[in-house]
Amino acid sequence: MTTHKLLFLPGDGIGPEVAREAEKVLRLLAQAGAGRFETEHDLVGGAAIDAHGVPVTDATVNLAAEADAVLFGSVGGPKWAGVRYEHRPEAGLLRLRKDLGLFANLRPAICYPALASASSLKPEIVEGLDILIVRELTGGVYFGEPKEIVTLENGEKRAVDTQVYTTGEIDRIARVAFELARKRRNKVSSAEKHNVMKSGVLWKEVVARIHAADYADVELEHVLADNCAMQLVRRPKQYDVIVTDNLFGDILSDAAAMLTGSLGMLPSASLGAEDASGRRAALYEPVHGSAPDIAGQGLANPLAMIGSLAMALRYSLGMGGIADRVEEAVAKVLNAGLRTRDIAAPGQNALGTAEMGDAVCAAL
Amino acid sequence: MTTHKLLFLPGDGIGPEVAREAEKVLRLLAQAGAGRFETEHDLVGGAAIDAHGVPVTDATVNLAAEADAVLFGSVGGPKWAGVRYEHRPEAGLLRLRKDLGLFANLRPAICYPALASASSLKPEIVEGLDILIVRELTGGVYFGEPKEIVTLENGEKRAVDTQVYTTGEIDRIARVAFELARKRRNKVSSAEKHNVMKSGVLWKEVVARIHAADYADVELEHVLADNCAMQLVRRPKQYDVIVTDNLFGDILSDAAAMLTGSLGMLPSASLGAEDASGRRAALYEPVHGSAPDIAGQGLANPLAMIGSLAMALRYSLGMGGIADRVEEAVAKVLNAGLRTRDIAAPGQNALGTAEMGDAVCAAL
Ligand SMILES: CC(C)[C@H](C(=O)O)[C@@H](O)C(=O)O
Ligand SMILES: CC(C)[C@H](C(=O)O)[C@@H](O)C(=O)O
Repeated sequence: MTTHKLLFLPGDGIGPEVAREAEKVLRLLAQAGAGRFETEHDLVGGAAIDAHGVPVTDATVNLAAEADAVLFGSVGGPKWAGVRYEHRPEAGLLRLRKDLGLFANLRPAICYPALASASSLKPEIVEGLDILIVRELTGGVYFGEPKEIVTLENGEKRAVDTQVYTTGEIDRIARVAFELARKRRNKVSSAEKHNVMKSGVLWKEVVARIHAADYADVELEHVLADNCAMQLVRRPKQYDVIVTDNLFGDILSDAAAMLTGSLGMLPSASLGAEDASGRRAALYEPVHGSAPDIAGQGLANPLAMIGSLAMALRYSLGMGGIADRVEEAVAKVLNAGLRTRDIAAPGQNALGTAEMGDAVCAAL
Repeated sequence: MTTHKLLFLPGDGIGPEVAREAEKVLRLLAQAGAGRFETEHDLVGGAAIDAHGVPVTDATVNLAAEADAVLFGSVGGPKWAGVRYEHRPEAGLLRLRKDLGLFANLRPAICYPALASASSLKPEIVEGLDILIVRELTGGVYFGEPKEIVTLENGEKRAVDTQVYTTGEIDRIARVAFELARKRRNKVSSAEKHNVMKSGVLWKEVVARIHAADYADVELEHVLADNCAMQLVRRPKQYDVIVTDNLFGDILSDAAAMLTGSLGMLPSASLGAEDASGRRAALYEPVHGSAPDIAGQGLANPLAMIGSLAMALRYSLGMGGIADRVEEAVAKVLNAGLRTRDIAAPGQNALGTAEMGDAVCAAL
């Protein structure tokens, strides 16, 4: 049996608490003989700043590159508000994405039937919602140069960020979206602002070309990013796969996640390109942030992190069947009415982080 | 009595139909002696392309600059999908914004009590919602250079857009937001991505400085744009004034508009700087687009356009009292249960565009 190498980077805030529960699940799988896992742990974000003065060290990046999958918690918090820009906690995550070439960010927005009532939207609008946002993650305004603040002659400052996309970058993310759509409801909505941005013009052109050449069987629609934000609020179930750039993806995926009413439930995967041997770098993380306000109190919902582990089993370790079992265990726990504080109805009893992890293990 | 000069630019799609109803209201006000108005009409967008080959002519821009207020309908439609980029319908609107210096875009998102049930959100989440989005409109990625697509040596294309903001641009839009907040619930939320963008770093810094120097009495919070999109879905009533850049403003204001369930109801104002004589360029337009699918059928809701006229009366013509009367007439019509198709409950009788305009005139 191959041994799978997993690197845990719990990070800051509630990251370590929720990562602990995912590891519990992993240990149970190992004990049950479902697979052999070698786990390592390292620091990222504020935790790495405190220990090493940088939000991620070269050694950690190397470990991440060698791992079969990275399980990432969350980074950031008010404690590090004062550190200089290049060393802020988020820079650790951005460097991992860039150095590992994690260009494809998969963010499912799923409304769990048991939790539909937790949404701020009407139940009939979100019940059964199942959208997959495919966000480009290593290009665009996040990494384009120049990216600087300069002081002008008149004493004013001038800040510049640069949105850059090449044909190749759009091509590869579009293919990821079309491939995934084929395994789902066979529809891709490509969101950009071609009416204002040249990167949007190129985006639309390349997506249309890839579609015509290799994916004509998939339904494709082009939608302006502002209209997409509207439509997500109005009638989200019209979408299957949404493919979009780094910045629009950041905003649209957060809006989509919130529609479900169960942000604490949503995992994500960030994938690199496959090499000749079929191997690819991969990082899995919950969509929720570090939530410093509730950190360390055992109140956080570990299900997004456990869901991220399930995604890792499926996409990186070739253990799709086991991933299904983990997701079924999560569904079972929810159907049994167990809730953490974030998804509990008013007045309902809420489990702590560790109790919820234990409940999933028991259901498994 | 001064004569107020109004320029109507109805544009494309449903623009001309809804503009006609706003003009009806204006004529009634003139007849009632509420003011003296001189109106002109000109082409913009696709209509201007068809007539002149460009989406707005120099002559039209000059007329707009001389008017006390421009009443703009909407531009664009599939008919002009093939025109070259520099001459697309939207370019007419973008040129007007830039050449008239309309840097401050005010987009109210108000949930009319009579229409709360039309929202896709739960009534308790949106009832009483009253947000004002203050969007910077002449800077950022919309106008920054370079903005181009180049062909690389390897045959790939590379598209670039540039996000630029200077201290002065941020300063003046922040002041608009703080001033408006003082007349409302005294809270400003400033949205950016300082964790990723240098323009966000400068934005946050300048807004904080203006606040400390001149508006310490107003509550200020900084929010990441992705989190703002989430919070708008989760608990929109936490916001009063949101100030943000051109691109984030485009997306967040559309999401906010859709929360209300009454997109066809929402006006907007785009204002320039005041000159020494207190005069400023101003353009008023509905938030909804040109809706080519229903254009020419008399189905469109004219209330956003009539609301835009009310904003023009208030902000450009010094006729706040009359503006109140127009808005009261709109509220009366809604309370009487009159609806156009877009805001009618399933099965409810719907008025056409002209009938709705007539109803507002009657209520007035
Ligand atoms: C933490 C931050 C840099 C990051 C981003 O903007 O990409 C986050 O918002 C996300 O969506 O993963
Ligand atoms: C028509 C388009 C250029 C415009 C924009 O992106 O600003 C529109 O979406 C708006 O919000 O007014």
